[in-house]
Amino acid sequence: MIDWFSNEEKIGAIPLNDRGFQYGDGLFETIAIRDGELRLWHYHVARLARGCKTLGIKMPSDDFLRKGVMHALHKSDTKKSSAIAKIIITAGVGPRGYGRTENISPSTLFAVFPVIPYRAAAYKDGIDLALCQTRLAINSSFAGLKTLNRLEQVLARNEFNETELTEGLTMDADDNIICGTMSNVFFIEGRTVHTPSLNRCGVAGVMRQHILTCLEEQKISTKIHKINFSEIRDFDEAFISNSQIGILPVRCCGNTHWKSTERTQEIMLIMAANKVIECHL
Amino acid sequence: MIDWFSNEEKIGAIPLNDRGFQYGDGLFETIAIRDGELRLWHYHVARLARGCKTLGIKMPSDDFLRKGVMHALHKSDTKKSSAIAKIIITAGVGPRGYGRTENISPSTLFAVFPVIPYRAAAYKDGIDLALCQTRLAINSSFAGLKTLNRLEQVLARNEFNETELTEGLTMDADDNIICGTMSNVFFIEGRTVHTPSLNRCGVAGVMRQHILTCLEEQKISTKIHKINFSEIRDFDEAFISNSQIGILPVRCCGNTHWKSTERTQEIMLIMAANKVIECHL
Repeated sequence: MIDWFSNEEKIGAIPLNDRGFQYGDGLFETIAIRDGELRLWHYHVARLARGCKTLGIKMPSDDFLRKGVMHALHKSDTKKSSAIAKIIITAGVGPRGYGRTENISPSTLFAVFPVIPYRAAAYKDGIDLALCQTRLAINSSFAGLKTLNRLEQVLARNEFNETELTEGLTMDADDNIICGTMSNVFFIEGRTVHTPSLNRCGVAGVMRQHILTCLEEQKISTKIHKINFSEIRDFDEAFISNSQIGILPVRCCGNTHWKSTERTQEIMLIMAANKVIECHL
Repeated sequence: MIDWFSNEEKIGAIPLNDRGFQYGDGLFETIAIRDGELRLWHYHVARLARGCKTLGIKMPSDDFLRKGVMHALHKSDTKKSSAIAKIIITAGVGPRGYGRTENISPSTLFAVFPVIPYRAAAYKDGIDLALCQTRLAINSSFAGLKTLNRLEQVLARNEFNETELTEGLTMDADDNIICGTMSNVFFIEGRTVHTPSLNRCGVAGVMRQHILTCLEEQKISTKIHKINFSEIRDFDEAFISNSQIGILPVRCCGNTHWKSTERTQEIMLIMAANKVIECHL
């Protein structure tokens, strides 16, 4: 059983009139704690701030959020050096109806979960992805953000619940590849790294942003653009990323197979040298 | 303070690991109780069933839902003959992650709220609508359904929070009019009643469905189709509908004005004769 905390108090439940429950009126972040540090913290805070701005929710201070996570970590039975922290910010409690009341104040919740180690061989050999039937709606007002409205990801994830597959790629209605259900996707062609643009839908992961920054620093060219499903077979390699797993090479998605993971592994080494992802090679 | 019930027990809060809270993984209905009857009950149950099928949630029986509502009504301080019932069904509680566990069972919650009477003059004179800037994402997997993912409606509703306006119309990214934040919209041209198709986004209201059925029975022609914002000024009249307010004539939406409410009032009389909406004329 995972403990949740609000204002440094353990809470077992959330009031039914919290707008996070009634309407998904809120945001969340899932942060990797490694060597006791909150990894990519500034990226998480920046995404939360963008989300709060879009949703019109008062953004808590960086200090308040960091203290909340550290308190939950301190109180948790989980291994302190390596864990997963989750922050949820909702618009707060209020009466029935979509309109928020004027004096509403956000609910901020913290919990820490144990890390479930990913099988090490997958980092060498790559993984197989499902191609999800659930499509992401286009031109979302919340494109790129991590809101509590996550039904598309839930449905996509549940398509391959009982198989050996650990992740699936999702497309929009125009057959553009957008991202995984809980990860972002990259493709490699020659010396260039491609990733889908997320200006119409999808979640812009903190690890995606960090990878793009690191590659740029290494003078490796990156291209963020619309990538249609029909084009993905033309790439040399594919990989996925998220804040917990770092980078995982991909062998196939549905019937599309990539033969190499060589360039992906180079990028994994660059990222590991950067001390943000562990090197599993 | 509104009481919520689950399995005929009063509950003050919902567990934090309920997927309704974590991901908006659920559905809801808001039912008008009038003269002690659950108005348009079969339409509400049918929409819930469609939602449960799409979301992969086990649909509770009609009897279970009806008993739940009647129990909440019985326990409530609210006037029994005229009230608003709310049902929430979530996928249930489970561990972190978008994937549902196999043995998960839905959470079903009931509450009853007092009716806030709408000012009677509005039924005669019509109301003014805002035109919302928040756009509805296109090709939603949940088009027509009333899921717990309601952030678009929350943002649209909050655009006109502090004005005299009581409702706003929302468009998709292609400037098609879809619906109000909490209502559906109709337009009248000659003897034909038009309403936007909701196959790409929006909520298909039970009152909308009931109006379409009644008009058909009266041999009044109806047209469900794509209606662009640029076309709405060409209609003679406009009105909105939902399960609580019935039908309300519309005078204007932003800068678009309609001069008449005559045909709308005829439709209100037809619907009142049908004993489903009160006649406020």
